[in-house]
Amino acid sequence: MRLLLVNPNMTVAMTERMAAIARATVGDRAEIVPLTATRGFPYIASRAEAQIAGGIALEMIAENLDGIDAVVIAAFGDPGLMGARELFDLPVVGMAEAAVMSAAMMGERFSIVTFSPLMTRWYADCVAATGLGGRFTGVCTPAAREVDVARVRSDLRDDLVALANRAVTEQGADVVILGGAPLAGLAPEIAAEVQAPVIDPIAAATAQAMTLAGLGGRFAGRACKPAGKSAIGLAPALARAIAMEVR
Amino acid sequence: MRLLLVNPNMTVAMTERMAAIARATVGDRAEIVPLTATRGFPYIASRAEAQIAGGIALEMIAENLDGIDAVVIAAFGDPGLMGARELFDLPVVGMAEAAVMSAAMMGERFSIVTFSPLMTRWYADCVAATGLGGRFTGVCTPAAREVDVARVRSDLRDDLVALANRAVTEQGADVVILGGAPLAGLAPEIAAEVQAPVIDPIAAATAQAMTLAGLGGRFAGRACKPAGKSAIGLAPALARAIAMEVR
Amino acid sequence: MRLLLVNPNMTVAMTERMAAIARATVGDRAEIVPLTATRGFPYIASRAEAQIAGGIALEMIAENLDGIDAVVIAAFGDPGLMGARELFDLPVVGMAEAAVMSAAMMGERFSIVTFSPLMTRWYADCVAATGLGGRFTGVCTPAAREVDVARVRSDLRDDLVALANRAVTEQGADVVILGGAPLAGLAPEIAAEVQAPVIDPIAAATAQAMTLAGLGGRFAGRACKPAGKSAIGLAPALARAIAMEVR
Amino acid sequence: MRLLLVNPNMTVAMTERMAAIARATVGDRAEIVPLTATRGFPYIASRAEAQIAGGIALEMIAENLDGIDAVVIAAFGDPGLMGARELFDLPVVGMAEAAVMSAAMMGERFSIVTFSPLMTRWYADCVAATGLGGRFTGVCTPAAREVDVARVRSDLRDDLVALANRAVTEQGADVVILGGAPLAGLAPEIAAEVQAPVIDPIAAATAQAMTLAGLGGRFAGRACKPAGKSAIGLAPALARAIAMEVR
Amino acid sequence: MRLLLVNPNMTVAMTERMAAIARATVGDRAEIVPLTATRGFPYIASRAEAQIAGGIALEMIAENLDGIDAVVIAAFGDPGLMGARELFDLPVVGMAEAAVMSAAMMGERFSIVTFSPLMTRWYADCVAATGLGGRFTGVCTPAAREVDVARVRSDLRDDLVALANRAVTEQGADVVILGGAPLAGLAPEIAAEVQAPVIDPIAAATAQAMTLAGLGGRFAGRACKPAGKSAIGLAPALARAIAMEVR
Amino acid sequence: MRLLLVNPNMTVAMTERMAAIARATVGDRAEIVPLTATRGFPYIASRAEAQIAGGIALEMIAENLDGIDAVVIAAFGDPGLMGARELFDLPVVGMAEAAVMSAAMMGERFSIVTFSPLMTRWYADCVAATGLGGRFTGVCTPAAREVDVARVRSDLRDDLVALANRAVTEQGADVVILGGAPLAGLAPEIAAEVQAPVIDPIAAATAQAMTLAGLGGRFAGRACKPAGKSAIGLAPALARAIAMEVR
Repeated sequence: MRLLLVNPNMTVAMTERMAAIARATVGDRAEIVPLTATRGFPYIASRAEAQIAGGIALEMIAENLDGIDAVVIAAFGDPGLMGARELFDLPVVGMAEAAVMSAAMMGERFSIVTFSPLMTRWYADCVAATGLGGRFTGVCTPAAREVDVARVRSDLRDDLVALANRAVTEQGADVVILGGAPLAGLAPEIAAEVQAPVIDPIAAATAQAMTLAGLGGRFAGRACKPAGKSAIGLAPALARAIAMEVR
Repeated sequence: MRLLLVNPNMTVAMTERMAAIARATVGDRAEIVPLTATRGFPYIASRAEAQIAGGIALEMIAENLDGIDAVVIAAFGDPGLMGARELFDLPVVGMAEAAVMSAAMMGERFSIVTFSPLMTRWYADCVAATGLGGRFTGVCTPAAREVDVARVRSDLRDDLVALANRAVTEQGADVVILGGAPLAGLAPEIAAEVQAPVIDPIAAATAQAMTLAGLGGRFAGRACKPAGKSAIGLAPALARAIAMEVR
Repeated sequence: MRLLLVNPNMTVAMTERMAAIARATVGDRAEIVPLTATRGFPYIASRAEAQIAGGIALEMIAENLDGIDAVVIAAFGDPGLMGARELFDLPVVGMAEAAVMSAAMMGERFSIVTFSPLMTRWYADCVAATGLGGRFTGVCTPAAREVDVARVRSDLRDDLVALANRAVTEQGADVVILGGAPLAGLAPEIAAEVQAPVIDPIAAATAQAMTLAGLGGRFAGRACKPAGKSAIGLAPALARAIAMEVR
Repeated sequence: MRLLLVNPNMTVAMTERMAAIARATVGDRAEIVPLTATRGFPYIASRAEAQIAGGIALEMIAENLDGIDAVVIAAFGDPGLMGARELFDLPVVGMAEAAVMSAAMMGERFSIVTFSPLMTRWYADCVAATGLGGRFTGVCTPAAREVDVARVRSDLRDDLVALANRAVTEQGADVVILGGAPLAGLAPEIAAEVQAPVIDPIAAATAQAMTLAGLGGRFAGRACKPAGKSAIGLAPALARAIAMEVR
Repeated sequence: MRLLLVNPNMTVAMTERMAAIARATVGDRAEIVPLTATRGFPYIASRAEAQIAGGIALEMIAENLDGIDAVVIAAFGDPGLMGARELFDLPVVGMAEAAVMSAAMMGERFSIVTFSPLMTRWYADCVAATGLGGRFTGVCTPAAREVDVARVRSDLRDDLVALANRAVTEQGADVVILGGAPLAGLAPEIAAEVQAPVIDPIAAATAQAMTLAGLGGRFAGRACKPAGKSAIGLAPALARAIAMEVR
Repeated sequence: MRLLLVNPNMTVAMTERMAAIARATVGDRAEIVPLTATRGFPYIASRAEAQIAGGIALEMIAENLDGIDAVVIAAFGDPGLMGARELFDLPVVGMAEAAVMSAAMMGERFSIVTFSPLMTRWYADCVAATGLGGRFTGVCTPAAREVDVARVRSDLRDDLVALANRAVTEQGADVVILGGAPLAGLAPEIAAEVQAPVIDPIAAATAQAMTLAGLGGRFAGRACKPAGKSAIGLAPALARAIAMEVR
């Protein structure tokens, strides 16, 4: 199998770290095909940015669909996820949604721990979009808004462990999601120090993409797809997808 | 006052009809500045299309903000609305949201009547996004999926009146929203034949934009805005808005 | 146009202040016809009081409907609003509902700031009644229960600014509603000091009444009205309205 | 014990029938003190009527509270219930609420069967007000709107049995509530013909009033009561209750 | 009438205390038939324990149904309640549900006060199961997890009074439920010190069982029952109930 | 890895069919260890049966936990799932929950198609328990209640295909879950005839168990577990699990 790992952020180092985690997750069962956005934002953190980056994600998927079995949108916040599900005839998985659905099968209530209060609203919106907001105990972050994203994993390690444990003991979370691409890979490193399972969203999304692809089912010719449309000024591959001329 | 009427669809005739209704709504109190998308889709009808067209709407707003007091996103489905509210320091109103909020002040329950079952899911999603889904009696449409959008107002007039009355008498709607830009202007024409108030979304959105602009308040420097971001490959005006360098 | 501004409280000074704000809101587009209750309570603050004052509001409307285009119920808490919508064939708007619906078009989440914890439950009930409780961050008040209602605007000015800013920065409110007739007119005075738009409910209700009246629609002969009823011991005008003999 | 049975409708025959059922329910454990409204409506069926009749109910309670242990508001729709709970220091029970809460202890989902589609909206509102709307399968009525309220028990008997059985077999109701004072006393007569328990709301309300009175607890001096208020033009007993000068 | 009081916990002293309260509640109107589990747990406090104890409760009911008019499941958490309602043709009432439904007829919002934070999750789950979570202000407990269940009523008396009053004044609870069998009987003792009605769940459950039994209705032959099933390895009486061969 | 596949039903043929599907799902990545209940019911279809069978499932897990990496509860309805998650320090997955969570990553709305209306309530309860009821379009079944469970896959094949397609085209389901162990294995056979992905719950549950086990995390020593308890009369292995003495 081949999984397309679409990073709608422009930071190649993030893509590489996430691709490495994805490869460790799938082992020899699949090939990971990583893509990094070449326009847009270094790191998406609002609805406005997700509006634009989601369109870029659709374009990246449309242009790289050949031979692909499933797609991972590798940004917490899942930009473009709903639209991609309408357009493309294969499983498409988002990091936030996959982390939330996985958490919901590990325990009753889950928390998101992340690195800056600037992400709080954006991440809470993501959980609400899944429909599982009633099982969410909230976003927990350190107080400082400005952080060095490249160093956040080491700089904030102890704070994040403490926040995760407080989410469990004080807020009653059964599972902790370590949200945000800058924290990719940290979950297994701190797992032994946190009193509940800790989910790494990129690992969860990769595993869920494999799961959905393995379940099969008929994605092509679905009755619930929107009608094909002509489009002007879009990347040709995306225009063809909108016209329902592919797959 | 000056209102920017942003049609993220590419159909100029629709923009013109909607601008005429907007002008009739504001009279001499404001100038209407209409814009039509120059790329994208003739008529948005799905999440995938709204993902892309919403980014185009943000660009159109960013490039035409000078001297504007409020913005109307002139497509039922409100593409780009949430992002625009984050970025721009003035009231931004969507057709679906404005119609729904207005309906909710006219009665307890409201229905949307529109011209094709292809719009049902998209419009239901729009109502859910407002948070008022609990007062919504559903989308009512004729059975035929394929329609001539340019002629739908006259071709389906009788069907739409019948559907509106059924929404009232059978489903208990207190108010009927006539959804979709192709029906702009039909509401006052059929009002006398429908046993409940009928809302024209472009009139509602224009009136609400005036209302919000008139209420004043401090849109600039809001604490709840996201942080500014650098961006690559965006229209320069939109990049500056994302960087929070304007207004 | 002529708007009936019905204050179901007995405090004439409040009516006068609210009428002045309403006049500033409508300019030369409409005449404001203010009414003050001649029985009932100086200031409504509970369900029991609203039960009684709502009946008085219905009576005041029924007796003064001639030549009126829309009605504003000028008490936060909207006593009598739902019943008035059933009985009268024109737009009827409440201060709390209009403020909430307007706030919901300015941002995602809104807060109510008011002058005494005695109002907390009553105002929270009002928001819940609109159906938008999921977007409400709560009622914020100073700690002291006993206040001099006539002086509360000046005495508590600094406290209210601080509470409004805390609602924004700590609770994530995008918009602040300054609830309660004693605070009418304060919103524009403190707007520059609050890091989010601040809504004055009487201005919002007046503007929304104009908006709804401008949208037209068929209020008379609505299919969803209750059946006419005979009544005994009511003010004659109200009895005629209940009998569906007027308008 | 003494229970005040307050009929906020003006129909004495209804009060008498309901008092008889209440007496059969309490046996020798309590005395039933029935009251019929002397102004208002023959039969309440809308929010507007409930707004007014609820105020009348508060007055009736305030004037007859001496030696009373609990109050039953004997109209389906519970006019005045929430306000009465704020004002009076004893249990106050409504017919709709008591029927719903009792039904919710007999099965998972419940239906309301009543005599005219004119009651549908009003009764659905009552269920929503309890918070148990998620367990409600809806209001079922015969098609004819105009009925002779005095004869409805015999005229519609077979229709109501059929509707009740359909609510059970087709909509999955576990319990059927026979809503509306004109059907008081019919439940036990048709019980053997309906394939689920059938609740008579006046019996349920009487039994629940006894239950709550028996549970004791401190109704006087509750911290969650609103502050006392002066009032003008109210019945003196009600004004004293609003002023928190009684009980 | 005869009420079966089924304690699915193994602590006889608890059963005896609860039976005494039940007897005081029913007076000479009914006979209380108490049962204590002979296997299972001293005191149920989790979903896992309730899964098992609920099966034991079904067995205890099936084996002792002769001549019984209603059943009380005498453990807060209501183990086996939903299954018992499916199987047995008479009213079955749970302590948590009966307390919640009774509280909801005494006021708008209710709190649960109990003796250990270990019960918090379990009790919150119970409220959610009733559907009335929207009116629940939460579980309040002392900080210490380890308590001597037999002495908790006296040891923690002052703490519980303080917690109950804080639930009322700080969280806005109108009614307080004193949750957990070890607190049975404490409610009337502290009622005068708490500024809101305090509910004793075993008294509430007993009273509600009497109420439901008194309302009559057809429990046998209900259309919404599941189909009969053969079973192996169950207590014979329970197997017969599952086979729908009894009552 | 080793997965315990616990069938709390007593039908060995079902276990064998499900084990075969599970083996096809995991390939050489894991060993499937199937278990069939030796007491209880041939096929669980109600809350009462699930109450008892869930306790049996806990016992089966406790007695067979050695060397196991994850557990699948192989009955649609997930008897014992919540309790098992509390007790055991490894991932535990249910068929209904896993199917629902997987469906929710394939599309916006999902339907359950099954073989008899007798399952409708039970399956709807299962979806509600996941928290995703808002995305559920309902249970669709043939009209006949009595079916030969062993032959249902072939007898009803055409009916089930038609129901699945109607769920998609008429109710707007994006994904169809083929609910109930008797239909295990049918999904891939009919996939090409249904206009949406069709999920086989046992395949979904097996895949999700692998996914969760692969994500790692600290299940042992979780802070949110209930306290250990002594127990009497339970299978010794289950008693030790309840006492928190294992794993």
